Amino acid sequence: MKSFPSYPGTRDFYPEEMKIRNWMFEKQRKICLNYGYKEYSSPLLEFTDLYRKKSSEEIVNEQLYTFFDKGNREISIRPEMTPTLARMIANRNSQYIIPLRWFSIANFMRYERPGKGRLREFYQLNVDLVGIDNIYSDSEILSLAIDILKSYGADDHSFIIRFSHKELLELWLNFTDQEKVKQIGRILDKKDKISESQFLSELNAICTPKEIDKIFTFLNLKLNSLEGFEDLPKENQDKILMILNRLKKTIELLSSLHNINIFKFDPSIVRGFDYYTGIIFEIYDTHPENRRAIFGGGRYNHLIGQFSKEDLPAVGFGMGDVTLEIFLRNHNLIPNSKQYKGFYFACLDEKLYSEYLSLANFLRQNHLLVEMSLERPKKFGKEFELAEKKGYVYVLIMGEDEFKEKKIKLKNIILGDEYYFSLENKDQLIKDLSKFQ
Amino acid sequence: MKSFPSYPGTRDFYPEEMKIRNWMFEKQRKICLNYGYKEYSSPLLEFTDLYRKKSSEEIVNEQLYTFFDKGNREISIRPEMTPTLARMIANRNSQYIIPLRWFSIANFMRYERPGKGRLREFYQLNVDLVGIDNIYSDSEILSLAIDILKSYGADDHSFIIRFSHKELLELWLNFTDQEKVKQIGRILDKKDKISESQFLSELNAICTPKEIDKIFTFLNLKLNSLEGFEDLPKENQDKILMILNRLKKTIELLSSLHNINIFKFDPSIVRGFDYYTGIIFEIYDTHPENRRAIFGGGRYNHLIGQFSKEDLPAVGFGMGDVTLEIFLRNHNLIPNSKQYKGFYFACLDEKLYSEYLSLANFLRQNHLLVEMSLERPKKFGKEFELAEKKGYVYVLIMGEDEFKEKKIKLKNIILGDEYYFSLENKDQLIKDLSKFQ
Repeated sequence: MKSFPSYPGTRDFYPEEMKIRNWMFEKQRKICLNYGYKEYSSPLLEFTDLYRKKSSEEIVNEQLYTFFDKGNREISIRPEMTPTLARMIANRNSQYIIPLRWFSIANFMRYERPGKGRLREFYQLNVDLVGIDNIYSDSEILSLAIDILKSYGADDHSFIIRFSHKELLELWLNFTDQEKVKQIGRILDKKDKISESQFLSELNAICTPKEIDKIFTFLNLKLNSLEGFEDLPKENQDKILMILNRLKKTIELLSSLHNINIFKFDPSIVRGFDYYTGIIFEIYDTHPENRRAIFGGGRYNHLIGQFSKEDLPAVGFGMGDVTLEIFLRNHNLIPNSKQYKGFYFACLDEKLYSEYLSLANFLRQNHLLVEMSLERPKKFGKEFELAEKKGYVYVLIMGEDEFKEKKIKLKNIILGDEYYFSLENKDQLIKDLSKFQ
Repeated sequence: MKSFPSYPGTRDFYPEEMKIRNWMFEKQRKICLNYGYKEYSSPLLEFTDLYRKKSSEEIVNEQLYTFFDKGNREISIRPEMTPTLARMIANRNSQYIIPLRWFSIANFMRYERPGKGRLREFYQLNVDLVGIDNIYSDSEILSLAIDILKSYGADDHSFIIRFSHKELLELWLNFTDQEKVKQIGRILDKKDKISESQFLSELNAICTPKEIDKIFTFLNLKLNSLEGFEDLPKENQDKILMILNRLKKTIELLSSLHNINIFKFDPSIVRGFDYYTGIIFEIYDTHPENRRAIFGGGRYNHLIGQFSKEDLPAVGFGMGDVTLEIFLRNHNLIPNSKQYKGFYFACLDEKLYSEYLSLANFLRQNHLLVEMSLERPKKFGKEFELAEKKGYVYVLIMGEDEFKEKKIKLKNIILGDEYYFSLENKDQLIKDLSKFQ
């Protein structure tokens, strides 16, 4: 029979790929835990209504895996975590001590055309800090994100953090037509992915030349130089000043921990999700061929309140594994070891098999990895070849001679050196072998 | 707004539940790795055709979450791992060194009526040993399964392993009508879950009284006493003897590692999946109120061959988290600690916040867990109360005095004792604090 295909846009993680995935996720988990974040997890499916109003229009209309179950309930495979997080927190609101620090690593599905950096099934770390709205919480979330990248060995020159504030565009344009502001936001959002002429023609389709001018002064805003600012109503000016002041303080706080040059104020950052309300940020690879954001996040102060009596401010980010892995590969940060720790137990005498089993089990109970040969006795050479192909360096051997003398032989099959250990002092045996694992 | 419901039959894992889940899965992962098994992972969705012929009829006809994607492909959420495993191995058959030892921990969905021990979304550990067919591989899989239960602290009296062989029923009944054998198998499969009278009436509906007699002698078979055996054709007798001999040898091998009394030959074990071909087993809780199997598995020698040129024998098991957790709760094996390791950093002076941040980051980089207070300065008492509610025992404090003297205070908020550490020798600081984590 021909090989059977997997569903397009998804990945089979064979052990060698799973090793990399586990390495990536373990670093994330470690950093989150060390910041005091607690892990949670959610169902794969939600009622579709959860996403209908709480997710981006693009996701709901075009990308959702949605269907009816056998009980005729309309359900969807989760395309993102934030609506679920909001639902979960709202449902047990009163039981938790604010602020909440939560994270999860889960898989998501979106119906997209598979391509580089874009699959239909992807994994994402979600980190959220809930119940507090100040510069300390904004900066903690950013610092945690940076520390994850650093934990992979990424240096200050390999990535840049572009940040802005969700309300800036609206306050700056000061249009009465909110739908138009949203449309412009969507065009800005894809600015880096399309050509300059396409960008212009899309703006031309909905804006007057004067409006386009206003958009371009907006895109040139700096934290400290606000050209065009004086034309705005006083109320908008005040709000903009407050926002910029908070952004400045947040980055100042971070400068005691991280190189200030990795932060770049960029008004073109908009983020696709409607639920954002404050700081928004996207982390970019500085590698010239990688123009998509690695990941991003922001503050969303009114999402949880839509599911509960109490409004709870929140800030967080989502870090997808596909774009992250491209970044790590671009900068040569993925470890490439084919060797496995532990011992391969060559079973050369079938009569002794239950002795082998007992010993192997004893070693495992003492936290040593032991993979056993399961075949009838083979030649030494064949066993060593198999062990080496499997990635082992150390082989355990107990023939009839060793068994009689109550000892075991350890062989380094790469270098060829051999060691003998007595089986009579079991504590010592564990100590000795632990040095080789 | 009212709280928004989750999809019935699924679970939200809040941090306190996730802690238990992680504890369960980490034990499984540890044991598998120490036996030399490598982790893999698969897509959430497969083409429905994969299950149509490779899974049980009950799953495909009644329990599959199946639908069409936006490209009109018929796909299903995975209801079990084995067909995917077979597909994956077949697709890279030639690249791997036999035998393969693989495991995965993943979520699955089946449309069932939710109840005790039965949910629509569940997690399952799958462990498989592929490419070898002998007593050593059968016994390794069983031993690994037992070691997982023991790693939770389960003792020999808390569970029992019922085992049989997939071909026994067919060889014993010796019917020409294979469909009838399957039907009888399905009735035997639910024997423990239905009343004796219902069991009899279901058999009566398809069997003659003489056939029912034959089924009852079958159910009374012992490994060493085969009443009714002499009436069978010689060919069947030979096969049955070979099967029983292998089962006996497998259990003998295991008796060097585990109490022999936990193994019980039980011809009523049938397993619902058609792909089994050899030994089959189910692990039962000895707790009288828990009558469902905790988990089970068996040998399936011809499944992988259906996706590839080469047939590969295999043996494995699947351990679901829902039934496992009920078992662990029945025997009081789930740890119940509400305390968290690490330090809560009470930030009492806003001017010093960037000092706090630098120190916290330094400690985290040295593998200490530090959760920071994010509020404007509070009273000591309030901060301690918050730390205690969050489950911390140790609080770090640096007021203006400590800052000037370049030291930090550590307070045990349960017992009240305090310690001071100098910030000038950073290596020593890490050493000292590590003792409290």
